Amino acid sequence: MMTSMERTYIHNLKDHIGKNVLIKGWVSVRRDQGKLVFFDIRDVSGSVQGVVVPAEELAMAVAKDIRSEYVVGVSGTVNLRPEKNIHPDAENGTIEVGIESIEIISVPKDLPFELSADVNLDTYLDYLPYTLRGERARDIFSLQATLVEAYRAALRRQRFVEFQAPSLVGGDAEGGAAAFSVNYYYDKKAFLATSPQFYKQIMVGPFERVFTVAKIFRGEKHATSRHLSEATCIDFEMGFIENEREPMRVLETCIRDVVAHVMEQHPTLWSRFDTIPPLVPVEDFPVVTLQEAQRILGAPEEPDLEPEQELQICDWAKREKQSDFVFITRFPTAKRAFYTYEDPAEAPYSRGFDLLFRGLEINSGAQRIHEYDLLIKRLKDRGLEPERFSFYLQAFKFGMPPHGGSSTGLERFTARMLELPNVKEATLFPRDLNRIDSRLSVNE
Amino acid sequence: MMTSMERTYIHNLKDHIGKNVLIKGWVSVRRDQGKLVFFDIRDVSGSVQGVVVPAEELAMAVAKDIRSEYVVGVSGTVNLRPEKNIHPDAENGTIEVGIESIEIISVPKDLPFELSADVNLDTYLDYLPYTLRGERARDIFSLQATLVEAYRAALRRQRFVEFQAPSLVGGDAEGGAAAFSVNYYYDKKAFLATSPQFYKQIMVGPFERVFTVAKIFRGEKHATSRHLSEATCIDFEMGFIENEREPMRVLETCIRDVVAHVMEQHPTLWSRFDTIPPLVPVEDFPVVTLQEAQRILGAPEEPDLEPEQELQICDWAKREKQSDFVFITRFPTAKRAFYTYEDPAEAPYSRGFDLLFRGLEINSGAQRIHEYDLLIKRLKDRGLEPERFSFYLQAFKFGMPPHGGSSTGLERFTARMLELPNVKEATLFPRDLNRIDSRLSVNE
Repeated sequence: MMTSMERTYIHNLKDHIGKNVLIKGWVSVRRDQGKLVFFDIRDVSGSVQGVVVPAEELAMAVAKDIRSEYVVGVSGTVNLRPEKNIHPDAENGTIEVGIESIEIISVPKDLPFELSADVNLDTYLDYLPYTLRGERARDIFSLQATLVEAYRAALRRQRFVEFQAPSLVGGDAEGGAAAFSVNYYYDKKAFLATSPQFYKQIMVGPFERVFTVAKIFRGEKHATSRHLSEATCIDFEMGFIENEREPMRVLETCIRDVVAHVMEQHPTLWSRFDTIPPLVPVEDFPVVTLQEAQRILGAPEEPDLEPEQELQICDWAKREKQSDFVFITRFPTAKRAFYTYEDPAEAPYSRGFDLLFRGLEINSGAQRIHEYDLLIKRLKDRGLEPERFSFYLQAFKFGMPPHGGSSTGLERFTARMLELPNVKEATLFPRDLNRIDSRLSVNE
Repeated sequence: MMTSMERTYIHNLKDHIGKNVLIKGWVSVRRDQGKLVFFDIRDVSGSVQGVVVPAEELAMAVAKDIRSEYVVGVSGTVNLRPEKNIHPDAENGTIEVGIESIEIISVPKDLPFELSADVNLDTYLDYLPYTLRGERARDIFSLQATLVEAYRAALRRQRFVEFQAPSLVGGDAEGGAAAFSVNYYYDKKAFLATSPQFYKQIMVGPFERVFTVAKIFRGEKHATSRHLSEATCIDFEMGFIENEREPMRVLETCIRDVVAHVMEQHPTLWSRFDTIPPLVPVEDFPVVTLQEAQRILGAPEEPDLEPEQELQICDWAKREKQSDFVFITRFPTAKRAFYTYEDPAEAPYSRGFDLLFRGLEINSGAQRIHEYDLLIKRLKDRGLEPERFSFYLQAFKFGMPPHGGSSTGLERFTARMLELPNVKEATLFPRDLNRIDSRLSVNE
């Protein structure tokens, strides 16, 4: 009977008031109130309250068995709620479905805990196929989907061409970054990319402006709130720049677009995370050199900022510049990757930059060396063998303009956007020292 | 002097006729004609012809040195071409830049061959940072960028939410697919994902409709024109389906959108590949069961189609149904992945499907098993240990509707779109048995 009726998405119910509908979804919550049974039902498009009254005897008989995460098809009438039950700001807060019949599509086994329960991070991760169904996780990853698409769209509008960067690479060329090794064919070793850096620089040759959303893999033996074995980066690279300020401007444009888009698409989510949308200044994002930052903080000159100092300089930017974002520039060249450009007039400082957001570095970028001979010299100065970089070096042998770009960590950006304490909460299936889906020590 | 002038993108030159401009880019071709020197110059936005006349003595002195892949800044006047030199259909075929001064930004070393040279695939791949600059490669990967974005947009329009699937996985659960192993922390083994299948099924729980553009890795020891060690897939999965026809319809909608979008964005590229845009039927894509396909071809009943038969059934679909696309359905369940749904009334045939495009399978999909107990039984029937799938199986323990989806190979789809003989040509940095950037035997 029910299957002959067409399904209505929950988001569209408000256009069917007084009409009979069939909805399908998961029961998020069941509440009994006197003789009435209420369900919150969710589908791809939204969530709505359903109510079963005693007069609907058949439906009530089925309703008695239904608990959270039951998958159901429900038919009934879309009604305006009684005045006292109206929540005008809530999703579908003015309507409810008067349930007339219920088809049980899937019966869950015993649930480990309620989805709304406050479980610790390890338990949350142990049960991801279940816990990801909670409102908090759905909020985080809906926002992340919006973020990544808005970022790509902002880059496309600025003429950037998307490309697919490889994850398997031939060598751990840079060393140090703790690349994972892969057992490739015939006992050969390959490695997992620690960055799409070389490939995006190569791609400047064909397209001048390119971007990629790529996986990066780092075997750092840190179990912190910021580190992941596998992360997603949004990387761009552009040719014909004067200095690092041009990629910084492109990045700032992207960030502004992302924030605007996320605010438009997710207007109600911020309060659920006890936060507000990122503060974007009317003027340009503040830019301070490392030395200026240290002077502002009354800190000694060191080659980089400590995590605590990143928090402090962000506090300063928020207080003095009304900005949740702040660029740090002019790090010592010796502390940046070998391909980072240094203008002789600016030595020993490089044309690298970091973007901090609410206390955390979410992006790192630079103008790069574009001259072949200079790049060879830099490699040798760092004790690296140019022969191992021969594929990459071709890009510079065959004519390359001054260029630069940057890399944003998707999970870090998402985490700070919602002020999540741990970046793992902004990673769908986080991998680290101790876990790939299941805990590794338990698993083996 | 030149740096004070603002750069004009080549695509916009037609709006500057009679005006003085500064353009920056790579010299694709240099041609001498009598006393004139011509250059084709390309930037991110397009390509244009520049001409140096003898009266511009300073420019001519510089021009004499310039060869292909020089990176230059050129200032001059945008002129309408003399009548006899007009190519109305070519990009900027009605204008040229009368060059007044040239700044050399980067000088290439000796080039191994001309970009337009017809080199064999191995040489092409050895020199990718150079060969990707050729018009053919830029055509292929511009089209691929359009394709992937159009596909994502089509899925978003159909309510699908994007997610990031992991590449590192804990076990080679399915076996057989020859997963590469990774040396994870503390001598533990991890593996590279052969598919995002489990994760997209899990994600049906939180979002009902999801998609991902993900890397997959397969250590198949094939050196064919169709196989890659690392490939990109566009995967979607959706809940609340009646049967496999619903994901087939979603897929068809995506493919139609992609084809329309690619035709609109790349109107002139097809002739350069000696092909035409894909033939999309007015009616639905043809759907034939495996048995029907074999009957049409007069072939014996086998559990799958041979590559030669895939070509033949595509010829049939093109001839009889005016379609470059054809769905094959009802493969024997025993030949499909363990999670493939089989309706008892349809045994021994499954609810799996393949989509063939111009002779090649570019997509595979199915309705999946959604009942926990049935899935456990299927695993055991296949000799697989349910314990090894415990993380994945949670999705089915906690309430899961009937669902299904499909996976499109991005490189295969691109390759057949342009009728490229080898899928490696549609892969930016192809990895296979013998190569990761450089040839492996040479490299080690």
